Amino acid sequence: MRRSLFEVDHEAFRETVRTFVAKEIVPHHSGWEAAGVVPREMFAAAGAQGLLGMAVPEEYGGGGAPDFRFNAVLAEELMRAGVTGSGNGLTLQNDVCLPYVLDLATDEQKARWLPGIASGELVTAIAMTEPATGSDLGSIATTARRDGEHYIVNGAKTFITNGINADLVIAAVKTDPTQRHKGMSLLVIERGMVGFERGRNLDKLGQHAQDTAELSFTDVRVPVTNLLGVEGRAFAHLVDRLPQERLGIAVAATAAAATALEWTLEYVRDRAAFGQPIGSFQNSRFVMAEIATEVDIAQHYVDDCIRALNAGELSAVDAAKAKWWCTELQGRVVDRCLQLHGGYGYMNEYPIARAYADARVTRIYGGTTEIMKEVVGRDLGL
Amino acid sequence: MRRSLFEVDHEAFRETVRTFVAKEIVPHHSGWEAAGVVPREMFAAAGAQGLLGMAVPEEYGGGGAPDFRFNAVLAEELMRAGVTGSGNGLTLQNDVCLPYVLDLATDEQKARWLPGIASGELVTAIAMTEPATGSDLGSIATTARRDGEHYIVNGAKTFITNGINADLVIAAVKTDPTQRHKGMSLLVIERGMVGFERGRNLDKLGQHAQDTAELSFTDVRVPVTNLLGVEGRAFAHLVDRLPQERLGIAVAATAAAATALEWTLEYVRDRAAFGQPIGSFQNSRFVMAEIATEVDIAQHYVDDCIRALNAGELSAVDAAKAKWWCTELQGRVVDRCLQLHGGYGYMNEYPIARAYADARVTRIYGGTTEIMKEVVGRDLGL
Amino acid sequence: MRRSLFEVDHEAFRETVRTFVAKEIVPHHSGWEAAGVVPREMFAAAGAQGLLGMAVPEEYGGGGAPDFRFNAVLAEELMRAGVTGSGNGLTLQNDVCLPYVLDLATDEQKARWLPGIASGELVTAIAMTEPATGSDLGSIATTARRDGEHYIVNGAKTFITNGINADLVIAAVKTDPTQRHKGMSLLVIERGMVGFERGRNLDKLGQHAQDTAELSFTDVRVPVTNLLGVEGRAFAHLVDRLPQERLGIAVAATAAAATALEWTLEYVRDRAAFGQPIGSFQNSRFVMAEIATEVDIAQHYVDDCIRALNAGELSAVDAAKAKWWCTELQGRVVDRCLQLHGGYGYMNEYPIARAYADARVTRIYGGTTEIMKEVVGRDLGL
Amino acid sequence: MRRSLFEVDHEAFRETVRTFVAKEIVPHHSGWEAAGVVPREMFAAAGAQGLLGMAVPEEYGGGGAPDFRFNAVLAEELMRAGVTGSGNGLTLQNDVCLPYVLDLATDEQKARWLPGIASGELVTAIAMTEPATGSDLGSIATTARRDGEHYIVNGAKTFITNGINADLVIAAVKTDPTQRHKGMSLLVIERGMVGFERGRNLDKLGQHAQDTAELSFTDVRVPVTNLLGVEGRAFAHLVDRLPQERLGIAVAATAAAATALEWTLEYVRDRAAFGQPIGSFQNSRFVMAEIATEVDIAQHYVDDCIRALNAGELSAVDAAKAKWWCTELQGRVVDRCLQLHGGYGYMNEYPIARAYADARVTRIYGGTTEIMKEVVGRDLGL
Repeated sequence: MRRSLFEVDHEAFRETVRTFVAKEIVPHHSGWEAAGVVPREMFAAAGAQGLLGMAVPEEYGGGGAPDFRFNAVLAEELMRAGVTGSGNGLTLQNDVCLPYVLDLATDEQKARWLPGIASGELVTAIAMTEPATGSDLGSIATTARRDGEHYIVNGAKTFITNGINADLVIAAVKTDPTQRHKGMSLLVIERGMVGFERGRNLDKLGQHAQDTAELSFTDVRVPVTNLLGVEGRAFAHLVDRLPQERLGIAVAATAAAATALEWTLEYVRDRAAFGQPIGSFQNSRFVMAEIATEVDIAQHYVDDCIRALNAGELSAVDAAKAKWWCTELQGRVVDRCLQLHGGYGYMNEYPIARAYADARVTRIYGGTTEIMKEVVGRDLGL
Repeated sequence: MRRSLFEVDHEAFRETVRTFVAKEIVPHHSGWEAAGVVPREMFAAAGAQGLLGMAVPEEYGGGGAPDFRFNAVLAEELMRAGVTGSGNGLTLQNDVCLPYVLDLATDEQKARWLPGIASGELVTAIAMTEPATGSDLGSIATTARRDGEHYIVNGAKTFITNGINADLVIAAVKTDPTQRHKGMSLLVIERGMVGFERGRNLDKLGQHAQDTAELSFTDVRVPVTNLLGVEGRAFAHLVDRLPQERLGIAVAATAAAATALEWTLEYVRDRAAFGQPIGSFQNSRFVMAEIATEVDIAQHYVDDCIRALNAGELSAVDAAKAKWWCTELQGRVVDRCLQLHGGYGYMNEYPIARAYADARVTRIYGGTTEIMKEVVGRDLGL
Repeated sequence: MRRSLFEVDHEAFRETVRTFVAKEIVPHHSGWEAAGVVPREMFAAAGAQGLLGMAVPEEYGGGGAPDFRFNAVLAEELMRAGVTGSGNGLTLQNDVCLPYVLDLATDEQKARWLPGIASGELVTAIAMTEPATGSDLGSIATTARRDGEHYIVNGAKTFITNGINADLVIAAVKTDPTQRHKGMSLLVIERGMVGFERGRNLDKLGQHAQDTAELSFTDVRVPVTNLLGVEGRAFAHLVDRLPQERLGIAVAATAAAATALEWTLEYVRDRAAFGQPIGSFQNSRFVMAEIATEVDIAQHYVDDCIRALNAGELSAVDAAKAKWWCTELQGRVVDRCLQLHGGYGYMNEYPIARAYADARVTRIYGGTTEIMKEVVGRDLGL
Repeated sequence: MRRSLFEVDHEAFRETVRTFVAKEIVPHHSGWEAAGVVPREMFAAAGAQGLLGMAVPEEYGGGGAPDFRFNAVLAEELMRAGVTGSGNGLTLQNDVCLPYVLDLATDEQKARWLPGIASGELVTAIAMTEPATGSDLGSIATTARRDGEHYIVNGAKTFITNGINADLVIAAVKTDPTQRHKGMSLLVIERGMVGFERGRNLDKLGQHAQDTAELSFTDVRVPVTNLLGVEGRAFAHLVDRLPQERLGIAVAATAAAATALEWTLEYVRDRAAFGQPIGSFQNSRFVMAEIATEVDIAQHYVDDCIRALNAGELSAVDAAKAKWWCTELQGRVVDRCLQLHGGYGYMNEYPIARAYADARVTRIYGGTTEIMKEVVGRDLGL
């Protein structure tokens, strides 16, 4: 069915994004994959085109449009171009990091950080996961001991998206290590602070252009003016922002699935075997029909979630539903589409091969499928 | 997510339906299952409460509300009460048969038939399938030879819902047996016409209260005034009405899945094993979470399809998507829910057992899942 | 691949079984389904042909062949004839009940019971499940209080196969109600004992010819000479016999799947649509190929399990693997085969419809799929 | 269940292989992955340890043991070490290429080639696929025109395993381009022949250490003494050897799945979350139980296929069943195992991440799953 989500402004924005992606990302994507990271300049270029900070008030240099449909357009166009790893840093900045600053920062902090976030001169990251701590956030071990007007931060984080490029790292730390969730706070740790080191840029299965790094903090002195939100309330701050993060992943996953469908339709219409297009074999037709159906269904659900988010009504449960179902769909779809490409599907020169590797992490990051089912299941009273 | 489809009138109608089902169907359902058929009086009782012919213009005694949301409410409430077989005749009359009369009948025919359809005094059926012809409608063998002001009809039909109770049978016949699709016409064959015999009320796996019968026609003289629509155009007439029929099945399937979820939630919260409610085992919780997610996703898609149908925009392809996906979902859900009931799930005193048997045909009737995938796949150019 | 399990004796036995089933069961099956029970005489007729007690020593009138391959042949032929409910009582007697008597009975008990079990004059049942107790055997509530040379038994059982026909009921009871597993014993409760009543013959989804009943015990005086095995060791006695019971279910499930495949192959080769046999559509061909592959794989695994059982080496874990996987396979196969029959698949006159209903309980009885996965998972140290 | 396939000789061979893999491959695997190819010397080292040409008669320097169990041991140990791409060249030489020489070569050819194949001084490849020809072998376009005592070969091949390292390429060519299958012959094209060029070493999703290359032939003069088998009979020659090739893939796939299970068991037992090992969550336990069951079932089927192959009785259909089912199993297993690793599963330092990428091609090469289902389905008369 036809989508009814977008209005004329979003379609205009889509054109801008499409042009940017075609000119500023696609030609460089392979090189950035080889490098394992995108250049910081790409953020500034995106900012210059209005692709960062759409929700930032105009007074801080942003788009002044707190409307997640713009975020969705950006995610969709990045997926459609097949440049997942090169684009993830942008969507992370908009969908995940920015809301912390918008919602929790003091006016002083906003003035310090929002202009750079919107312009792309400040690259952001969020640091929750630790080597020994995945989904179980309450057991993080990074500590922040108060010392006068500073916190002294010690600990290590891993799997940090934008970890190499980040100027501002919103880190979950224990200001009270005797507590679990209640002892957690958020500190913004900045590039250049003494004792803040970046570890390895991790060698991943896919998303090669995106830097995913280890970070370490050794007696880093972070001024208390970098506390984000309320001390001891980090867990609530994080939980409040999860629906938007997860919906963002669902949006991208659905777009990735839709894109794989498009690529594969083209392939199976063109490629012949045994004297006919391979798409005309009933098995291929059924596979494509199943994918087309499920992508359509997912899209309508995601679009309704976006409406709910914009209305301030998207629950954690509904975001969890969208997140796990759409990323599992993405996994199924890229797998089946790759198969229809035959041997070519295994070659990196075909985008479906890279999409297959890129896709595998979406069922894990932002909360695994298993955690999402816990969220939904507990809401059922189980 | 909260549904936004219904307005206050629909909720009022829902109350009426719920009361009717509780008082007029539920107490009799087991008996009707044993009998293999509902009494004709049930149709009249439903008509008296406004449950038939909501879309029939008021001048013909109907509700004057051509709004499929009312049909959806009726289907949902029947499913929620677990009385599939007792209710199917009603939804068939509203969703499937009535549109032929509303859209194709002459004024004279409307005056003859619509009042009875709306009041429940005329029970309708549609007869397409023949013993040797399932999905391949073009090869039906029932003939209607013109003889003056009559057609002489010969042939046999099978799997006819409302077959025993029907007063009016909208039959697909070959007025030109030399043609396939182009030789087909629709004739309304009436109870009492000489040579129109009902065969066996078929012994089915489930839906026991619903009569599914064989019909035979031996030199039945049908007046030409009973031709519905244009001679030779039956295939187009049928195709035009398939989206609504298929959406109706999708609506009921989704409601059946939602109902199975509700029953099972109650069961797994109450039933204990190894000292804890069985719903608190992680496997049960995940199964319930998966079902809750997929039912929610299906519901939003179906609701969007209903909106599209009301707007005159529901395509055959989108109806096919909804039909196959929601009925397959229903199949998965009732199967998994039955399993969580353990041994009790296999006992007919538990509604999930009957729902399991009732559900199995929805992936077949109204166009099998395989035919639906053909419809979707061909639309993709494959 | 060709099976290599059977030798000439087994094939001769297969001929005997096949003849018996064709003459003594098939013609009566529908009637027995309507009655909800097979006549007791059927057991005697089967015994007369050597179909019961193949493992009973010749001195007690049995076949003297403790070789599970004979049990397998019987189960396979019953499934191949599509008479699940009529045959289940026979396989229960051989596969499940008899081993308790063979392994645990005193010489006196053997002399009393084995001849009748082998001749079919004594029909057996095993009674573990209680209304409030499914898989969690340790929490059964039926008590047996010692009173001189008798136990006084009080309690209720449910889901008892052969419950109506049984002469000897091997019942799990609590001789020490203060304990869980360690307080359980096995008593043989006989037809006619005062206070032993049969409740309802339960109305099931399928397997209609097989009596599944509730039993109740009110101050039943059971002589201590009817204690089977060691007092307080019932749990171990039960656990020891589970591998054979579960393998028996796997054997039957695999045969049921193979049979559904055969029926459906015949149907899709014969039935035409759109001018070609429906089996020649690629989707049908793939479905059939998938089923043929999985049935073949299951068969080889089950056959290796039978070899292991005969060698005294079949572990509880391997039996659990065979049980859950083969019954889940059966479920998938009958579902897909029914679908390929189209509307006819929903009609009870086609055996696939009845096989669908019959199959649904095999994933539940003898230990649910979920319990089997617990058994396998714990063996992995998880 | 315990496997009963191997005897003492095979276990001794397994020790040899294990030592070789640990010393000669594992330490170099990462480097070879970066290089995209293994050094030719690895083949000679393997040959020196008896890991090549086990089936080559002793007179030609081989092991004199035409027993596929040795091939299976080699494949299993390579998979267990997680060095898929480094080992594939060895199993290709033994399982796929060698049989052509053993079965079809003249004595003169055997004397020329077998000693080098057994010693590893000659690396072999088989070249069937062409850029425009995947599964449809009859439409290959490479031609071999007879010119006196030579064939003049022109054409291109792609996806050729060992393509960079190969000394001997067994190429399928059209000696009669007017025919499809009947015009095909096999020619051995040797390193150094003028006009034989290697194209790109293809950039694949996984199996990075294995060279998969394009080959081109421009007026290559191949002496008629390099014709393998009978002119015009290549299709039959190829078809005859497919069962062994496909079984070899099934063996490796099953071993890969078993290995992923082992890695993951270790991980989920060690890794804790929410205060307990993640393997102790019921969902993890069930996933592991499902995998353990299916791997066991697959293993028994594959082992029976190996016995059948050794007995000269493995049919094309049974090999197709094993191939598609075991590779699909491998796909499911590595996917689920990766998920249980959480974020670490996406990191290439964990072998499961590489195994995931390595696995994706096995459902494609050697005949796709779809082609296998065609083979099985047609054998059913569909």
